[in-house]
Amino acid sequence: MKALRFTGGRLSVDEIDPPFAGSEALIRVVMSGICNTDIEIVRGYAGFSGTIGHEFVGIVEELADRTDLIGKRVVGEINAGCGVCANCVGGDPRHCPSRTVLGIVGRDGAHAEFLRLPAENLVVVPDNVSNEQAVFAEPLAAAWGIREMADIKRDTRLAVIGDGKLGLLCAMSLRLVSDNVISIGKHRSKLDIASAADIETMLVDEITGSLNGSFDVVVEASGSESGFATALDLVRPRGTIVLKSTFHGTPTWNASRVVVNEISVVGSRCGRFAPAVDLLESGRIDVTRLIGGKMPLSDGVSAMGEASKKGALKILLAP
Amino acid sequence: MKALRFTGGRLSVDEIDPPFAGSEALIRVVMSGICNTDIEIVRGYAGFSGTIGHEFVGIVEELADRTDLIGKRVVGEINAGCGVCANCVGGDPRHCPSRTVLGIVGRDGAHAEFLRLPAENLVVVPDNVSNEQAVFAEPLAAAWGIREMADIKRDTRLAVIGDGKLGLLCAMSLRLVSDNVISIGKHRSKLDIASAADIETMLVDEITGSLNGSFDVVVEASGSESGFATALDLVRPRGTIVLKSTFHGTPTWNASRVVVNEISVVGSRCGRFAPAVDLLESGRIDVTRLIGGKMPLSDGVSAMGEASKKGALKILLAP
Repeated sequence: MKALRFTGGRLSVDEIDPPFAGSEALIRVVMSGICNTDIEIVRGYAGFSGTIGHEFVGIVEELADRTDLIGKRVVGEINAGCGVCANCVGGDPRHCPSRTVLGIVGRDGAHAEFLRLPAENLVVVPDNVSNEQAVFAEPLAAAWGIREMADIKRDTRLAVIGDGKLGLLCAMSLRLVSDNVISIGKHRSKLDIASAADIETMLVDEITGSLNGSFDVVVEASGSESGFATALDLVRPRGTIVLKSTFHGTPTWNASRVVVNEISVVGSRCGRFAPAVDLLESGRIDVTRLIGGKMPLSDGVSAMGEASKKGALKILLAP
Repeated sequence: MKALRFTGGRLSVDEIDPPFAGSEALIRVVMSGICNTDIEIVRGYAGFSGTIGHEFVGIVEELADRTDLIGKRVVGEINAGCGVCANCVGGDPRHCPSRTVLGIVGRDGAHAEFLRLPAENLVVVPDNVSNEQAVFAEPLAAAWGIREMADIKRDTRLAVIGDGKLGLLCAMSLRLVSDNVISIGKHRSKLDIASAADIETMLVDEITGSLNGSFDVVVEASGSESGFATALDLVRPRGTIVLKSTFHGTPTWNASRVVVNEISVVGSRCGRFAPAVDLLESGRIDVTRLIGGKMPLSDGVSAMGEASKKGALKILLAP
């Protein structure tokens, strides 16, 4: 099968054997999405080697224990736990210390014709959700999952810093639970996507001192040192900054300001898929506005180039 | 009156006029304590100029509106608010954007024969609490106030990094609410003070990898970049790091690890005085073990030198 692989410091579409399902599900990938994390991996983040990609929708081809799922269209949570630690026994492998992560840690990923995942990771996609929508389940779950880490109510004043795909998904999904969301970024064209979802927008250059300390929650989705500094400006005393993006290298921070203003800085990584799929099924969020293009898996290397361009939207791959 | 002042980049004991009380209380200082923040101010932190010091016990000499307090022995909260903003109207001026702070921001401090503070800042000291105990009300309130920012229960596994005066007060006070407190520092002699309060102790050099991820809450009270890095090692996924010390300069941090492990990093500054005074009155905590020496205010400059020495305990000043 074809697979977009990062091995030996080199990215290429290779012809390899399909994975052996074993006790897990063998899934034929219908569509996959390129995430910034894929791009970071190719830059050396996480030290991963193998097939990249963790956003997908596919069809279950083989699954020994759950034949009811065979032939079903599914998306899949990306963390696969050990099954025996307290996290896993509690039904949440996201912090299992021995976890593998699809296309990120110790497990071949989704930019391929086939992948394998444990049956318990799979969520069946409702018929009214298209492949182009379903492939957003992973980043939408990450955005929607912010509510696990921060209390967001209708009157919560919320700013999202970063107009990348994840930042826009954060703004669009959290707009459904708060009436006071502002999306802040560097690209007018991308902020227009937020505007279309009834979200106030602002260019970074337009931020004035009058906004300082005026937000209960600031979601930092730019992954940049300057984005965090802006978040520290915008959040009110005793407010919350949600770190939604991993950062390049080791940034600096004004830790004293966190102390003096008693800010909570809260990391947020993966969300659960079932609520995200419910959200897609409801039609309350239009993720397809975030699609920048579709390319064949065989063009995976140049697709990664497209996805790496400044201001790029979501690039989808089809085997 | 005599006052220990930092003006024009120079520290000296000066002869100045006592403050004019106006609508506030005029307080004759009986004893004051030197805090690391005083030392930081002399190094340029906060850009303060004037009389330093914010830990004190004193006697109310003048107070127009509350004559019942005249002659009473008091300690006093250090944040004085505008009185009209939402924080102040809610009874908590600690985050008033226009606040002054005793000996730190726009208000002369406590290393003097007299100081002034609003009546609402004052807490009367019970007779069974000595001056040497009462002068710890401010740092004890800061330590005890951690519970405003982090949920600490009897079974909470808690580590305190830093064996300075504040770190030890954190460990000693939080030991009263958790059965699993470990105090981690660089000085065996100081850790012995924690041991005497029935707290497990460990030298930084003794930390092994087996402790990684094993604490629900880590209090970072060293104010150092390496202390924060150690806190990130020790805290469990979805655990909490409480930043209790202001930091020198602009440290670096592994922000990606905060994201991946979904850590909450929570700043904690000033606590309320009433619960701290209650704690002193109860006799459940022996703060006097933290006293390193007592000196006259007239020797304030050399007292600051003593307090700046590596491993110094609390130096008290008496006018």
